[in-house]
Amino acid sequence: MGLREDADAVIREAIRRVLPDEAVDRALRDKEFGSGKLYVVAAGKAAWQMAKTAGEILKDRVEAGVAITKYGHVKGKLPRIKCYEAGHPVPDENSFAATQAALDLVSGLKKEDTVIFLLSGGGSALFEKPLISGEELADITGQLLACGADIVEINTIRKRLSAVKGGRFAGICAPARVYSIVLSDILGDPLDMIASGPAYPDASTCAQALAVVGKYKLNISGRALTLLKKETPKLLDNVETVVTGSVRGLCSAAAEACETLGYETILLTDQLSCEAREAGAFLAAVARSHQQGKKGQAFIAGGETVVHVRGNGLGGRNQELALAAAAGIAGLRETAVFSVGSDGSDGPTDAAGGYCDGNTKAVLEHMGIDIYDVLQRNDAYHALEKCGGLIKTGATGTNVNDVAVLLIRR
Amino acid sequence: MGLREDADAVIREAIRRVLPDEAVDRALRDKEFGSGKLYVVAAGKAAWQMAKTAGEILKDRVEAGVAITKYGHVKGKLPRIKCYEAGHPVPDENSFAATQAALDLVSGLKKEDTVIFLLSGGGSALFEKPLISGEELADITGQLLACGADIVEINTIRKRLSAVKGGRFAGICAPARVYSIVLSDILGDPLDMIASGPAYPDASTCAQALAVVGKYKLNISGRALTLLKKETPKLLDNVETVVTGSVRGLCSAAAEACETLGYETILLTDQLSCEAREAGAFLAAVARSHQQGKKGQAFIAGGETVVHVRGNGLGGRNQELALAAAAGIAGLRETAVFSVGSDGSDGPTDAAGGYCDGNTKAVLEHMGIDIYDVLQRNDAYHALEKCGGLIKTGATGTNVNDVAVLLIRR
Repeated sequence: MGLREDADAVIREAIRRVLPDEAVDRALRDKEFGSGKLYVVAAGKAAWQMAKTAGEILKDRVEAGVAITKYGHVKGKLPRIKCYEAGHPVPDENSFAATQAALDLVSGLKKEDTVIFLLSGGGSALFEKPLISGEELADITGQLLACGADIVEINTIRKRLSAVKGGRFAGICAPARVYSIVLSDILGDPLDMIASGPAYPDASTCAQALAVVGKYKLNISGRALTLLKKETPKLLDNVETVVTGSVRGLCSAAAEACETLGYETILLTDQLSCEAREAGAFLAAVARSHQQGKKGQAFIAGGETVVHVRGNGLGGRNQELALAAAAGIAGLRETAVFSVGSDGSDGPTDAAGGYCDGNTKAVLEHMGIDIYDVLQRNDAYHALEKCGGLIKTGATGTNVNDVAVLLIRR
Repeated sequence: MGLREDADAVIREAIRRVLPDEAVDRALRDKEFGSGKLYVVAAGKAAWQMAKTAGEILKDRVEAGVAITKYGHVKGKLPRIKCYEAGHPVPDENSFAATQAALDLVSGLKKEDTVIFLLSGGGSALFEKPLISGEELADITGQLLACGADIVEINTIRKRLSAVKGGRFAGICAPARVYSIVLSDILGDPLDMIASGPAYPDASTCAQALAVVGKYKLNISGRALTLLKKETPKLLDNVETVVTGSVRGLCSAAAEACETLGYETILLTDQLSCEAREAGAFLAAVARSHQQGKKGQAFIAGGETVVHVRGNGLGGRNQELALAAAAGIAGLRETAVFSVGSDGSDGPTDAAGGYCDGNTKAVLEHMGIDIYDVLQRNDAYHALEKCGGLIKTGATGTNVNDVAVLLIRR
């Protein structure tokens, strides 16, 4: 196998490990739930797929379930699990009704019962039951956005106006246990932020909520004000949480795949957020300083880089990262940098990312293509297309950010 | 000790290890030279200081020596070593005369003798004896620069027009051995590039030299053309080279200092060359992903970042790197990023670099200072000054690029 084959194997394995069904399978496969009854509640863009996998693994151990996803995302009926479609990104009456169905399901359970809670991106809108009218909730959210409140401030208010957010869903499930499987799409996996943490203790306080009202002079009803004074759960001893399909999982899977191929592997970060081309230059600098080792080496950097578009070319952040690295690793033997988006789609292109090695710059120059010029025009796609550097996976069905890898073979 | 004290200790130790005298001391201290005679030849901006240290260590074992440095850089007489001042960056007649004195010294030596060759930045101009007239050398150099030839092409020509470059100095020393101690100021330590490699085998060929003449239609004399057809040494079996005060040494010393303080240390790169603020963001992303370990951790990234100045503030690349990292590590406990120029001077400021930790962003915000705004104005100096984040060392006497460090304490 060559470097490119190693890269393809790493990409394949990393993405496979963060597919919703794979993630749920891994979290449930050897899990013991005791003698009580099992209930499934799934919410988010991947809810149907996650619920389907849970049903296939647990079979008739599932007593009943509710899955709530975006319009058009229910792909068929599921045994014992009722599927709902609702509004996203703005919650609608169907969100509220479906969430009520889930609450009815988990109310009055026993201590030995377990609620398997499958959460994915989009859960904030899809899993919601406001304690005030939908109109006032929309109005308060609008006021917060208009006055420039940040996401932490907005969530501090909204958690208290909701029957399920800020750990309250887990409170309703009690005394039953909650086994929460989270497919994270937020860098750093802040569990109280993903869907506003229905099954995670809330770190914010009433005092903070009231301070936000004062700071922005929010116009709210007496009922809303009363709710803001009611504390959210700070301790949930019936909840176990597994973050399974996150960018961290993507990076860990890539790292394990590199190890399997014989590379000594260092996971640099799973929270990359800098400019794509500079991340490529940084990885290239790492490559230049690690040419002397005896064993192959791999460095992993996951996250979500940014591109400040200046040109009118075609490309994506993963393609730019790889192409920028190509300039820095030019001439190095058996050295490659590649980067890929886990959803299989990088920028407005049909590629998932880009692959470059120590020969790429020379190959492009031979065709009269200058990397610096290509980057200035944000046209990485066409350059990579010409040198066989596009990575294409098709739509993968998951979305947990990107992973970039530097490989040095011996 | 706190994080800042750790940082100061690392900076102090790293710079100490790349001071010219320290570097020479380390290379000579336990070195055995057999029974022959020892001669010292020093060339470059640090030649006087390096020769002085060599003289102090070897004492009367030094038979004789020549040191060639920039005007104003000879700080006093040295026993047995004759000091010369000459032109830099453009060589002059004093360069040629001093170099001739060195060649006279090392001609006709015996097999058991050793030439201790002390090379530092600026050696290319200071250590030169052209095989054509100084006028024609200047003319050919001018033609090469005017037609856009790159540094590799220029050196391919110049090595062949010189009596000492491209390994020829070592050839003149033969059969005596040459112990070459190089204080490198070029990223990656390309030994055939530093002062055009007087004691290092030349990788370029006559065919390449003639191709350059053809490519740019150079107008050269018959004598110069004859010289270009004469090959440079490809193998020098009488030379031993120690690269001692390089950015690699700076980074190694920083890494060792971190280890001594109890940090598990990873040397990411000693060839960093990307945008300063993006390197800071990258290190911050590494910090965010390494908050769970049991032991303290340190990550080292050395090299020379760049700043694209857009604002009219005051700062330098090391200060920008640290301040950009401050945004990314905000709120992290016991986490710091600092960066420092080994010459003690970062940009047009009296600071060597900057230090930021997890509190820096909050401290600045409390004073109404926004990091993003400061970076837009390239005004890191004033922000760091206000929060105690400036690192000041004064002029250090060495110049081997920069080192940035991420520290995570437990």
